Amino acid sequence: MHELSKNIGGVGGFRAAGLACGIKGNDVPDLALIVSDRDCTAAGVFTRNLVKAAPVLLDQELLRINPGATRAVVVNSGCANACTGQRGLENARATGALVAARLDCDASAVFVMSTGVIGVQLPMERIQEGVTDISPVAGTQGWQTAAQGFMTTDKFPKLASARVRLSGGQEVNIAGISKGAGMIAPDMATMLAVIVTDADLTATQSQTLLEEVNSVSFNCIVVDGDTSTNDTVLLLANGASGAALASEDDVAAFRDALQDLCVYLAQAIVRDGEGATRFVTIDVDGAPDAAAARQIANTIATSALSKTAFYGSDANWGRFAAAAGRAGVDFDPADLELWLGEGERLESPLQLMQAGEPVDYDENEATSIVRQPEFTLRLSIGSGKGRARVWTCDLGHDYVSLNAEYRS
Amino acid sequence: MHELSKNIGGVGGFRAAGLACGIKGNDVPDLALIVSDRDCTAAGVFTRNLVKAAPVLLDQELLRINPGATRAVVVNSGCANACTGQRGLENARATGALVAARLDCDASAVFVMSTGVIGVQLPMERIQEGVTDISPVAGTQGWQTAAQGFMTTDKFPKLASARVRLSGGQEVNIAGISKGAGMIAPDMATMLAVIVTDADLTATQSQTLLEEVNSVSFNCIVVDGDTSTNDTVLLLANGASGAALASEDDVAAFRDALQDLCVYLAQAIVRDGEGATRFVTIDVDGAPDAAAARQIANTIATSALSKTAFYGSDANWGRFAAAAGRAGVDFDPADLELWLGEGERLESPLQLMQAGEPVDYDENEATSIVRQPEFTLRLSIGSGKGRARVWTCDLGHDYVSLNAEYRS
Repeated sequence: MHELSKNIGGVGGFRAAGLACGIKGNDVPDLALIVSDRDCTAAGVFTRNLVKAAPVLLDQELLRINPGATRAVVVNSGCANACTGQRGLENARATGALVAARLDCDASAVFVMSTGVIGVQLPMERIQEGVTDISPVAGTQGWQTAAQGFMTTDKFPKLASARVRLSGGQEVNIAGISKGAGMIAPDMATMLAVIVTDADLTATQSQTLLEEVNSVSFNCIVVDGDTSTNDTVLLLANGASGAALASEDDVAAFRDALQDLCVYLAQAIVRDGEGATRFVTIDVDGAPDAAAARQIANTIATSALSKTAFYGSDANWGRFAAAAGRAGVDFDPADLELWLGEGERLESPLQLMQAGEPVDYDENEATSIVRQPEFTLRLSIGSGKGRARVWTCDLGHDYVSLNAEYRS
Repeated sequence: MHELSKNIGGVGGFRAAGLACGIKGNDVPDLALIVSDRDCTAAGVFTRNLVKAAPVLLDQELLRINPGATRAVVVNSGCANACTGQRGLENARATGALVAARLDCDASAVFVMSTGVIGVQLPMERIQEGVTDISPVAGTQGWQTAAQGFMTTDKFPKLASARVRLSGGQEVNIAGISKGAGMIAPDMATMLAVIVTDADLTATQSQTLLEEVNSVSFNCIVVDGDTSTNDTVLLLANGASGAALASEDDVAAFRDALQDLCVYLAQAIVRDGEGATRFVTIDVDGAPDAAAARQIANTIATSALSKTAFYGSDANWGRFAAAAGRAGVDFDPADLELWLGEGERLESPLQLMQAGEPVDYDENEATSIVRQPEFTLRLSIGSGKGRARVWTCDLGHDYVSLNAEYRS
């Protein structure tokens, strides 16, 4: 039992703030700090890109050595601190140390995240000034400005919270911020997100819950198929509510709320996909296993031809079938079936392809579906039990303009 | 010893023609016929997409049952005859049979190729009229109109020929037509091409030569990463010159000419890439093996972020490094080195990254390179012997417009 809010009123013992410290210039927020008044357990999932940014390497190290005494996450936008070598790693450590000095805690208690241009060193003087000036607060305002500090090409800040009632009657809060609009590919962490809770979780509980939920939320989104060097999702739990997950039911209730929140934050990234005008759900079923279904869904979701068809309101299902056929999954094209329907879930679907052949459908009806801002494409490739759902957007002129003109 | 011409004067015993038969409307050429006066040996390579068009299935069958007595190839644009089920296969057979009736040969002697919209049945009445009206001729004019009949979103016809002097003093001719501008991905046949020669080749010789040459020409090009349902390259040899490849030297000389011709035809597809404004060579070396090098080169070549950076004249090498890191090839990011240079081959390169860290290079110099219509990007990922070269283009507004508005 939980309710999801698209804002963050507050989470026991956490404070947050965002601030413009001059990394991006133009007085745009580019620094965020999230602080817990007490030690947190921490869990994290990270990009699987071999080329990992300095803060990713640092955070992975912190999780290994100190997953039970986290106090803060400091986030900057405007500079990814990736491909920056030894100096980049020293700058990431120095950023954490500056925050630790302000909080009077160990440097290993401060996680660091960066997002922005690759191959440029962090402007440490500005970071230092920013860390000195930033003042995390407990209420809504702090979380709003923090979410702004995460943004790069994002058009809107992404934040949400959920309150979960446990079996003993206690309530715990979960809150999260995400960022991302481009360099978004499936099957990785694929963006930045910080999720905090005042529930009392062990580090192992946090890590297990985060990995479970990540696999059906952040790992199911595609904007452009490019996987960032910086992707990180952190979950911090400080126990300020005094409530632990005492039963299987409590774990399930908490997981449901966490999943709902992460799906919301993940979908917000797709809805804010660079230049996106369509939100498309791709459902694949009948595959030999879930991984095979996922591979087909991802191939369609990253196909330039499928994405430009979405953009052009063209129900050009031949492109979707062709993308499925090159996904590297073995199936019999004679089994291929395909439907389109409005909305985020498939409702009153229109069948376009049956047993590998075109159905005699009404093209106007198909066009009216793909003209909607949200629609669903379902492919069935056989009689297997494997299924997957992926969320993606279209590829339009604004994506090209943003990425030809913006050095990200 | 051979010379390459960007036209086809004539090849002994072959005739060709193109014609508008009304599949595409607007009186645009949409049918081509290439005929040999005598039996040819035939070789072919085909798309590895599971969803194969009817003519691909037919041609694969013909190659199995009758690779030594081919007389003609009939090609239509405007309709891919893909995802068309049993009726599509019958239409492909009927198309071949119509040509066979005109030539008074067996239907198994006629290969069929189609390109265009997926999921639509061939308009057989128009095909029938076209096959009745088309009149292949031996000279330049016939090959020019045939190449036009191949085109879909192509902006120019793609044809070339080479004359090879063999060790015994005899000369043989090779000529080829290709088409393609979108739905182009590496490691497959990736487009339509017909190559003919008056050399006397066995079917086995043809197939071996075609596969060798294909792997370093048509299989090395990327436009958008989407692999067509129809990709086919055929090589027909009718022996009209009376000259066989009698020695290793002759085989080598013929292979060189064939490779030169296929590289030209393959590069022409990239230069005509939908909306392309840049021709980019991607060289990867230092990989454990050639396949690993190819995988990294392909990942950069298909990356939306890399391609929009090319379009924007932005030497945004962080995106190239990030694409390499997600390619699925194991390497140490600390070994990564990166250069840019003008032209189709790397000349006087500018180093941007050394031992995994940024070099202090002049950004204006880097920008002036990627402003050129042709430039080369070289990545070295270690000390292995594996290397690969891939040709690709940028992703710009015209690609989006073409594919949002055109039902291909």
